[in-house]
Amino acid sequence: MKKIINDPSNVVEEMLSGIVRSYGNLVERVDDSRVIKENKLFNQVSLVSGGGSGHEPAHAGFVGDGMLSAAVLGDVFTSPTPDQILTAIQSTNNGQGVLLIVKNYTGDILNFEMAKDMAEMEDIRAEILVVDDDIAVENSLYTAGKRGVAGTILVHKILGNYARQGKNLDQLLEIGNDVVSSLRSIGIALKGATVPEVGKEGFDLADDEIEYGVGIHGEPGYRKEKLQPSKVLASELVDKILASYGSETKEVGVLVNGMGGTPLMEQFIFMNDVLDLLDQKGIKVIFTKVGNFMTSIEMQGLSLTTIDLTDKSEWLGNLESQVTTISW
Amino acid sequence: MKKIINDPSNVVEEMLSGIVRSYGNLVERVDDSRVIKENKLFNQVSLVSGGGSGHEPAHAGFVGDGMLSAAVLGDVFTSPTPDQILTAIQSTNNGQGVLLIVKNYTGDILNFEMAKDMAEMEDIRAEILVVDDDIAVENSLYTAGKRGVAGTILVHKILGNYARQGKNLDQLLEIGNDVVSSLRSIGIALKGATVPEVGKEGFDLADDEIEYGVGIHGEPGYRKEKLQPSKVLASELVDKILASYGSETKEVGVLVNGMGGTPLMEQFIFMNDVLDLLDQKGIKVIFTKVGNFMTSIEMQGLSLTTIDLTDKSEWLGNLESQVTTISW
Repeated sequence: MKKIINDPSNVVEEMLSGIVRSYGNLVERVDDSRVIKENKLFNQVSLVSGGGSGHEPAHAGFVGDGMLSAAVLGDVFTSPTPDQILTAIQSTNNGQGVLLIVKNYTGDILNFEMAKDMAEMEDIRAEILVVDDDIAVENSLYTAGKRGVAGTILVHKILGNYARQGKNLDQLLEIGNDVVSSLRSIGIALKGATVPEVGKEGFDLADDEIEYGVGIHGEPGYRKEKLQPSKVLASELVDKILASYGSETKEVGVLVNGMGGTPLMEQFIFMNDVLDLLDQKGIKVIFTKVGNFMTSIEMQGLSLTTIDLTDKSEWLGNLESQVTTISW
Repeated sequence: MKKIINDPSNVVEEMLSGIVRSYGNLVERVDDSRVIKENKLFNQVSLVSGGGSGHEPAHAGFVGDGMLSAAVLGDVFTSPTPDQILTAIQSTNNGQGVLLIVKNYTGDILNFEMAKDMAEMEDIRAEILVVDDDIAVENSLYTAGKRGVAGTILVHKILGNYARQGKNLDQLLEIGNDVVSSLRSIGIALKGATVPEVGKEGFDLADDEIEYGVGIHGEPGYRKEKLQPSKVLASELVDKILASYGSETKEVGVLVNGMGGTPLMEQFIFMNDVLDLLDQKGIKVIFTKVGNFMTSIEMQGLSLTTIDLTDKSEWLGNLESQVTTISW
């Protein structure tokens, strides 16, 4: 294992310290916790997200005005504990309730639900919005149903702006479910990631092999084959995504997300191919974003996320709104 | 070679297309060129940078209000040609002259100087600011003197804000030289990058080996040794940097820059160690930034850059100013 770290069992603690010391103008750590919150809380419903570490900049990089109120960091690829989630709820709630945005993994769902119950015993209302945008496979390792991946960032962005504008918890939950149902993602992997405490790659691929549909913790995808040109990869992912939309999709937003070890050069080449394909199919792309947002440590690969924006010009405004975060 | 590309000889063209199609709200391509410029030019001295591709987001990601007016893209790790640089000058000059911000590599210096001469024949005044912040080695492959690396981004940022505020070309050149002389950078590499047209890694390191002082094109550094903990790496780089400042440095800005294949987790852990060391030495850190800014395709490694901000509170304001770019 070749990593710039100190103690493999202390990576989250040191990373968390590095984040809050580097961006103390935006965020702070809640004392004795794994919670990173905004320096300044706003008079709105609080939005909290989180999950295992190793997906940076998700979620701490999206804490700030117009996105999240706080992020809770679990160990690498491990759900945060209920007491840590409760701390995030307590430290950001200002009486209007807390929306918990949770990627669909069994451990996360369990712990966020427990934290929600604990909060309600303290008379803090919390609701859970589950994000399950990964259409690659159903019922994979760690997950019942579909997994939650990079589309989660778009949920943070759209709901973050609505929360800032004063929508209440019920409204945010309803809109949130609508946003989630408009999202589709699939990933491809060229090379696995190494969890520091494990010390070896989570899965193996031959030198000329890629895997379609791999999850952000290295969960198995749906097919391995020889590496193909970017155009071929883009075609497979775009076709799968478009086929999965039930209704006619005329306008979309597109997010190309690097998995951590894939350079921007490849991400932009892939996006170029995706835009060609959508153009050929007569689908208008009205929002685009390229970069490392929901990574899998140093995994090589990327994911494609679309959001159906047909008749959703208001969501587009939210996606384009200015925010004050480390990483949007 | 395992990359998400189509034709190795066409990566820059397709990447450039991907960038301008993804961020057409901010930038555009000058027709039939390798120049990416701001959509909207401002009434100010124009700032142009560029160099070989493969360092994304540098420099196209820093084009926009408050940073660069345009970026010129060469082939991978290859200087842009003088005619392309001239196009960038012509397409952004509005009569107040053009400052060319050039990383110190022999090929870049030669081509930017030729473009400057060509511009002057058209009565456009252009000046060259050379950035040579890498203190690892003198006179390496491709370079006479010190190399220009990630500190260049801070030059873009400080001068970009001054240009926006109305400083003239002479003033920008003078301040620019002052900024450059306050910068220090050194990198470390864990694993080399592969230029698509070459097809194999630019240099080899054993599985447990790292190299200090490697350049952003894989140029040799000053020592290879077994991988050390982050604290040890940080200590070596911080000591070298502080020793190279002649005068007493009391306040600095710190940039930890990922080389493309190194996850944010490691970058933040390393920054945490750097901040501990500077704190122990009584040096106040008043600006910090962490992420992939000046990469070397998918190289694993990072660089540390400091800027001496002692008695330079005005520069701090420029570093903190709001900009409208893809990647700052």
